[in-house]
Amino acid sequence: MTSSQTYEITPVGVLRTPYQSVAQAPIQGAFEPQGEATLEVGEQYTEGLDDIEGFSHLIVVYLLDRAGEVRMKPLPLLDDTPHGVFATRNPRRPNKLGLVVASLVRHDGRTLHLRGVDALDGSPVIDIKPYVARFDSFPDASEGWFAGRENRPKPPGRE
Amino acid sequence: MTSSQTYEITPVGVLRTPYQSVAQAPIQGAFEPQGEATLEVGEQYTEGLDDIEGFSHLIVVYLLDRAGEVRMKPLPLLDDTPHGVFATRNPRRPNKLGLVVASLVRHDGRTLHLRGVDALDGSPVIDIKPYVARFDSFPDASEGWFAGRENRPKPPGRE
Repeated sequence: MTSSQTYEITPVGVLRTPYQSVAQAPIQGAFEPQGEATLEVGEQYTEGLDDIEGFSHLIVVYLLDRAGEVRMKPLPLLDDTPHGVFATRNPRRPNKLGLVVASLVRHDGRTLHLRGVDALDGSPVIDIKPYVARFDSFPDASEGWFAGRENRPKPPGRE
Repeated sequence: MTSSQTYEITPVGVLRTPYQSVAQAPIQGAFEPQGEATLEVGEQYTEGLDDIEGFSHLIVVYLLDRAGEVRMKPLPLLDDTPHGVFATRNPRRPNKLGLVVASLVRHDGRTLHLRGVDALDGSPVIDIKPYVARFDSFPDASEGWFAGRENRPKPPGRE
């Protein structure tokens, strides 16, 4: 199976969001679609943003750098039954990778103005990809235990 | 901006696909939706797959471990004009993160049977997330320079 090799990753940018704590952040970016955020890339990556303004949505991969320790069966925010971590979007996951599909409002030099980001302020960004509906949009996907689970206040003590 | 801090990541599993070389792999998983693949997680992550079978689609984040050196403006496979790497899905990207939305066919112990994966055989998997249409599906997203670019044979020498 997997070798025990590890890989080193280096952030390419940082997210600035209104959310200083887990309690303030929405459960998912889609639940706060008007929430404003910026993503600033390091100067050496500026050219990597060329032509990004043609896309209305971006896939932002970031690090959940303040997440608690990994749990294989966390209690998610939208349900009161534990589920396998890979069947959740919970931050207590191996490698602490967060992912959000954000709206791109404006590209200005090395800054992207976004909406609908759920990350904590200061979260390191490790990749940005253009969202392409032909590759990424599956409106009829079945949503497992998320079915019927609507947005709600975050249960205290959970992430 | 970004600090120079680096982070260490450890694969949680491995992809087995029919694609031994870049030339064999589809440009995107969506262009070969019936292509079969398996994803086997390490034994310590088996419980993390609990309840995953309720989802028809998964977001698989993997490492493009055989990608060439990073280019800020690569020539993509679907166009003959260079674009900023963050406006492409090109593998020559910082941190070499690959992402594909795959169909889940079956969950069997620590193995997921998938369709529509574009990764090379043996690619290390660093995260698996359930695809939730409410969070992840934006069928009307504008697709920038991808507009009108259809699947085609891979131009030789490109990744």
